[in-house]
Amino acid sequence: MRTRADIDIREARSDDWPAIWRIISPTIRAGETYALAPDMSEDEARAYWTGPDRRTFVAQASEAIVGTYYIRANNAGGGAHVCNCGYMTAAAAAGQGIARAMCAHSLEVARAMGYRAMQFNFVISVNVRAVRLWHDMGFVTVGVLPEAFAHPSKGYVDALVMSRRL
Amino acid sequence: MRTRADIDIREARSDDWPAIWRIISPTIRAGETYALAPDMSEDEARAYWTGPDRRTFVAQASEAIVGTYYIRANNAGGGAHVCNCGYMTAAAAAGQGIARAMCAHSLEVARAMGYRAMQFNFVISVNVRAVRLWHDMGFVTVGVLPEAFAHPSKGYVDALVMSRRL
Repeated sequence: MRTRADIDIREARSDDWPAIWRIISPTIRAGETYALAPDMSEDEARAYWTGPDRRTFVAQASEAIVGTYYIRANNAGGGAHVCNCGYMTAAAAAGQGIARAMCAHSLEVARAMGYRAMQFNFVISVNVRAVRLWHDMGFVTVGVLPEAFAHPSKGYVDALVMSRRL
Repeated sequence: MRTRADIDIREARSDDWPAIWRIISPTIRAGETYALAPDMSEDEARAYWTGPDRRTFVAQASEAIVGTYYIRANNAGGGAHVCNCGYMTAAAAAGQGIARAMCAHSLEVARAMGYRAMQFNFVISVNVRAVRLWHDMGFVTVGVLPEAFAHPSKGYVDALVMSRRL
């Protein structure tokens, strides 16, 4: 993995949406890594990725937006001290450490927001690059959801619940 | 436990809302068993418990509504074959097998709807009556979320992810 030194991560602005959509739409349409409707509309995707219950960030490298993530409380009430994030990287920018940089950034944001832990609710077990990266970032698998994901080419596969303290 | 023979479970109608609210509001306000904002408004609770993404049922005994549950897809896209339910029983009707009857009913509804599994995402570990009942109903703990719930009197306690095939 080549890590780019020039990754800049900042809070998304509303005029970033077209760039965000260019990144997340192929991942949503592929239906291989997120439990989202592959045919969701752009408006639905925008409501999901940039909704009022979360903060959304973009990662820039050489001026271009190459990744995006959100952070939100994973639950309300007694569960509001645990946050949840989702990350997506532009396909053309894969393997450059962008997801890693976004995760590291999100852990700092989460601490600054006062969260005590971060939880990923649904990591597709066959998404080995993601699982390895989250392990590297200090997450442990706290749950295995048997055959919880219908992968478009691999059939029913497990999903993992991963978490770490902050 | 005394099991009532006269429990009748049917799909909720919109005019059932006042009875549903009388059951679920004390549980929401107590903040001990659901990761919902204890101060959520009645409108927010109605949107949550009877939203368009789920079906809502009520349990009647001797004409009175004594319990309610919802069933929904736990995720979209590749996760839509797993359902999720939430159940609440009127405090005055506790210990009469109403939650058990609703769970059994929901398993049948889930099968009829074509779901392959049912998952509870956030069972509070110290809610021993619920944990025991779900075990009785064939659920196994597939995840332990460490200190994921801030219990109003017991402090940080684990939450369990429980699931079963249908």
